[in-house]
Amino acid sequence: MKFFSDNAAPVHPRIWAAMQAADAPDTAYDGDALSARLDAAFTDLFGVPCAAIWVATGTAGNCLALSAMVPPHGGVVCHREAHIEMDEGGAPGFFLHGAKLLLAEGEGAKLTPETISTVLDGIRPGVHQVQPHAISITQATECGRVYTPAEVSAISALAKARGLGLHMDGARFANAVAHLGCSPADVTVGAGVDALTFGCVKNGGMSAEAIVFFAPDLVDVVRYRRKRAGHLQSKGRYLAAQILAMLEGGLWLENARAANAAAQEIAAACGERLIHPVEANEIFVVLSPAEQAALRGQGFDFYDWTAPAGAPGAARLVTSWSSPPHEVEALARAIAAL
Amino acid sequence: MKFFSDNAAPVHPRIWAAMQAADAPDTAYDGDALSARLDAAFTDLFGVPCAAIWVATGTAGNCLALSAMVPPHGGVVCHREAHIEMDEGGAPGFFLHGAKLLLAEGEGAKLTPETISTVLDGIRPGVHQVQPHAISITQATECGRVYTPAEVSAISALAKARGLGLHMDGARFANAVAHLGCSPADVTVGAGVDALTFGCVKNGGMSAEAIVFFAPDLVDVVRYRRKRAGHLQSKGRYLAAQILAMLEGGLWLENARAANAAAQEIAAACGERLIHPVEANEIFVVLSPAEQAALRGQGFDFYDWTAPAGAPGAARLVTSWSSPPHEVEALARAIAAL
Amino acid sequence: MKFFSDNAAPVHPRIWAAMQAADAPDTAYDGDALSARLDAAFTDLFGVPCAAIWVATGTAGNCLALSAMVPPHGGVVCHREAHIEMDEGGAPGFFLHGAKLLLAEGEGAKLTPETISTVLDGIRPGVHQVQPHAISITQATECGRVYTPAEVSAISALAKARGLGLHMDGARFANAVAHLGCSPADVTVGAGVDALTFGCVKNGGMSAEAIVFFAPDLVDVVRYRRKRAGHLQSKGRYLAAQILAMLEGGLWLENARAANAAAQEIAAACGERLIHPVEANEIFVVLSPAEQAALRGQGFDFYDWTAPAGAPGAARLVTSWSSPPHEVEALARAIAAL
Amino acid sequence: MKFFSDNAAPVHPRIWAAMQAADAPDTAYDGDALSARLDAAFTDLFGVPCAAIWVATGTAGNCLALSAMVPPHGGVVCHREAHIEMDEGGAPGFFLHGAKLLLAEGEGAKLTPETISTVLDGIRPGVHQVQPHAISITQATECGRVYTPAEVSAISALAKARGLGLHMDGARFANAVAHLGCSPADVTVGAGVDALTFGCVKNGGMSAEAIVFFAPDLVDVVRYRRKRAGHLQSKGRYLAAQILAMLEGGLWLENARAANAAAQEIAAACGERLIHPVEANEIFVVLSPAEQAALRGQGFDFYDWTAPAGAPGAARLVTSWSSPPHEVEALARAIAAL
Repeated sequence: MKFFSDNAAPVHPRIWAAMQAADAPDTAYDGDALSARLDAAFTDLFGVPCAAIWVATGTAGNCLALSAMVPPHGGVVCHREAHIEMDEGGAPGFFLHGAKLLLAEGEGAKLTPETISTVLDGIRPGVHQVQPHAISITQATECGRVYTPAEVSAISALAKARGLGLHMDGARFANAVAHLGCSPADVTVGAGVDALTFGCVKNGGMSAEAIVFFAPDLVDVVRYRRKRAGHLQSKGRYLAAQILAMLEGGLWLENARAANAAAQEIAAACGERLIHPVEANEIFVVLSPAEQAALRGQGFDFYDWTAPAGAPGAARLVTSWSSPPHEVEALARAIAAL
Repeated sequence: MKFFSDNAAPVHPRIWAAMQAADAPDTAYDGDALSARLDAAFTDLFGVPCAAIWVATGTAGNCLALSAMVPPHGGVVCHREAHIEMDEGGAPGFFLHGAKLLLAEGEGAKLTPETISTVLDGIRPGVHQVQPHAISITQATECGRVYTPAEVSAISALAKARGLGLHMDGARFANAVAHLGCSPADVTVGAGVDALTFGCVKNGGMSAEAIVFFAPDLVDVVRYRRKRAGHLQSKGRYLAAQILAMLEGGLWLENARAANAAAQEIAAACGERLIHPVEANEIFVVLSPAEQAALRGQGFDFYDWTAPAGAPGAARLVTSWSSPPHEVEALARAIAAL
Repeated sequence: MKFFSDNAAPVHPRIWAAMQAADAPDTAYDGDALSARLDAAFTDLFGVPCAAIWVATGTAGNCLALSAMVPPHGGVVCHREAHIEMDEGGAPGFFLHGAKLLLAEGEGAKLTPETISTVLDGIRPGVHQVQPHAISITQATECGRVYTPAEVSAISALAKARGLGLHMDGARFANAVAHLGCSPADVTVGAGVDALTFGCVKNGGMSAEAIVFFAPDLVDVVRYRRKRAGHLQSKGRYLAAQILAMLEGGLWLENARAANAAAQEIAAACGERLIHPVEANEIFVVLSPAEQAALRGQGFDFYDWTAPAGAPGAARLVTSWSSPPHEVEALARAIAAL
Repeated sequence: MKFFSDNAAPVHPRIWAAMQAADAPDTAYDGDALSARLDAAFTDLFGVPCAAIWVATGTAGNCLALSAMVPPHGGVVCHREAHIEMDEGGAPGFFLHGAKLLLAEGEGAKLTPETISTVLDGIRPGVHQVQPHAISITQATECGRVYTPAEVSAISALAKARGLGLHMDGARFANAVAHLGCSPADVTVGAGVDALTFGCVKNGGMSAEAIVFFAPDLVDVVRYRRKRAGHLQSKGRYLAAQILAMLEGGLWLENARAANAAAQEIAAACGERLIHPVEANEIFVVLSPAEQAALRGQGFDFYDWTAPAGAPGAARLVTSWSSPPHEVEALARAIAAL
């Protein structure tokens, strides 16, 4: 019973179907009919002119999006626990040619105008220190927390005032929007985001994420960078098909709601154990080594996590669109019984 | 009727089946059971201990393989028409951090010890000029020509004598082996190749190529580089499944033979028009603009090509594992009738 | 008797004097009073608003200038024999983060609109091939040839028409202007050049070259790149002093005229041996191995050079501001006597 | 009266003399007789076989040295306040092609095995996080503190145990050795350091620092990297001359002792105001804004500094080999009188 991550869940049947429907030969790379529909599909979703392209991974998506905003000698403000800092194997250093991540604090891995300003104000202007060119936030965060539209707007106001781009890592964007109940535009373009990595893989896709540019001219340089990074697949239609199927009929939200609901069911059993409020599909719980062993003994698979200072041990539990209801229920019961 | 490339052909049914059989959740990235089988599968195929990893594109495969052999201040000898020089959007410069391609000549886009030596001997030792660290050859070449085991051995002897690594871009390796009728080892590890990009996408795959290291310790650094390049997909099992299915029962050779046979059928109709001997699945033909227009008018889709000096016009025709026999026959007839 | 290059000549007494006059402590880096005078000094020289900064080497100057014009995924058109291609150890790949040099032909290492167009027209638009972003020409060229203002204007017209920046490597700019007899502006900003590497080291300086931007806003990014490349020396006043002394009273032209005159004296003795017209301070001559040995036996030090096809051997002879007249005369006589 | 830094002090007369003695033409780059003496000079100084090369700046020296130890996908452990992190404009990201600085804590900007281990132990092995390849320490530190031989040995023992290289940024190495009274080998090669940036510029030089490799084979790759970074000056003899003169007769220690003595004189006047013990030539003092203004009103020039939490204000005072005794005395008196 796998609760270690949503990133290895099966592919949703409607994604499979869309991929197979794309099997007829078409123009290579992104010259096919499906890839050509991405701009329109996201323009529909967000209600403003968008440019959107596919890539295979969130790492590539995040770093390529940032490469349109940040020169090699520049920096990106992000949270100390951000995926680009902690879990991408140094990819920002590669894609941005040595640009620097400028690390900020914030509860629940959420940045605030205050924590960002602390970083910005600590940088001496001039050539001796790396100057910021963009801010990157994660929605939902690495702690499963969700930025409200107002929170994003406050950050974007700061970004604008300082002349910085604003990128959103939306590996779990669907989970965040499902939680907020707002429109996807409210928490992105309406709140001043310039580029969004729109995650699909964790939400029932196989191998496609979209980079959505609300400042559509940013896409031009990214097309070159994508090719140059070996990310322009020749059978791109199978990636476009996944993304289009995800948007079709709101599958992205449907899947995210299912994952969020499963997380809530488990969270309800965790009570005082919860380290962070559960807003998306990740649950961080205090669990002693013995308790972890007990759960693993019952067949539950999950990651150790670093406990907040003083806590005796912790774990991360992640649900997905496909978490079997009986496994979710079993996990909730098992935790309650500890 | 699409003869513009094999890189947009449909996915073979056995590849689809293998991908779908991989749908159950497993460990993420390359920690899954299928990815774990790659080393053994290629060790079986080549008869020596191999290390093998998946990537999504040939560009990533070529450049990651080379990144294990070439430092940022070094160079790679390749043919002036090599894919890494002509068609990868500068990816070698990105993956190798500014290392340089050192361009050599050779008929049919084939390097020879002589043309390589001309390049090597023209480089002054010392820090003022970029020094070579590897040679990269393409099998089959960009002109559809195939290196024999003896030809590869001669190049590897030179590489060894000069302390250079030897990489083979095998985007159409299957077509080359199908043409040669030798074992895959004969023309690679047996002939001194250090790393092979083993192509699947052009041969019925969807989105997986293998990098095969005959010097298995080279893989270690490439694992880091793959992650850092955003190429470590979290649902890697779907890529491993494609490669394993391709090897299973010799599908890779079966598909290549089909493509090669279709190419021979068309070649037979081309007679004097042929610019290069047809050895794999690419046919380069002299076709005047009017003839090209005539063929296109009949529904044949293909690329213009640069004609050899003095020729009145040229085109590239590419067959694939799935080229419909009646379309192949129709094309052959149409050319013969010109 | 050293005629191997002008790049190891002594430092001119007026440069020494200026450096020593700069010895009093001042603000570090380029915050000193001398560095602050560079913009005005070059604005005076060229008659238009210029921004100018010092660097220690021509390689750094060329590559930093280009880094303001060319993104990592772009390319620079230059001559096949250009210093940036042949003699900078891959520095453009480093400073430009993997951008590509696009090599053009041209007699005497001079580009022409035609040879540049041949390169440009051979590049397919789109992401699969590296697109040009700048042209770099060398004045005087690696063969000692000089572009006229009209020739530079013709190249800049092409650059403008194609949206490309135009950089001039002026390691021997002084020698070129001394030959032309025009104003320095005529052959640079007046002819459409965007940035000039203004050489001093080969012309009597010790360790300072200037990068002069005729599009002054280009300097901003280069200030960051210079620091990041470890080229922002803390005692920058000693570099600024060299450059200012070079401009003061026309020392740069005076030194170049001396070097050119010495070259003419030698050239006059070479007659039919000359491979290129002698316009600056380099002389390329046909010299058989025996003749080379004879000259070396008389104490003359120079580099072998690659002879034009069919010629029996060649050498490069370089004069400098400090070539002793009796050595120049001796060399001329020795060649005439061969 | 300038106490803002030692990095803008005049050039020592013996350095000037040595540079002028190098004026006769010699082979270019580092082929001259003086550059050829560097290995032997440092071998003498350290008592073990050394390879040593010149560069113009400490930034280039630090980053080039590290480039021999750290691949682009690797990391360097350094102090959060290290110069490479805080004051080199992102140069490590450039020279190391995106490698990452892994920041550790430590009082007085000194690392300890414990603070380094905290960083190392927090890194998950594998490709998802950047793995360490080297440790860089600064001697004396950015807070003017000095590592003892035993402290360096403890760090190198950890480095060896973890398979990491050990680099020492010795911009103020002379000041540290002058303070310690040990041999220069005791605190470097004898304590396990692999490469040392041996500073001269802050100690009476003009534009030359040495990189000294105690593992001499590391120099080979750095020679290529230096050229590629535009740091191979053609008149290298003037840089070699500076370094040789600095070593000659112990000038480096003599100058450092003068600077340290001046710092002690000022420190003695600071009493409770001292933020760090004064061991080299930097004095960090608590000074209220009013006190700072008072000192500046008397003609003293220095940098503001970030005060330790809770302190009302702070400043950094730096002495050099050339700090005029009467100015030092005046500053001491002025502080005492506050």
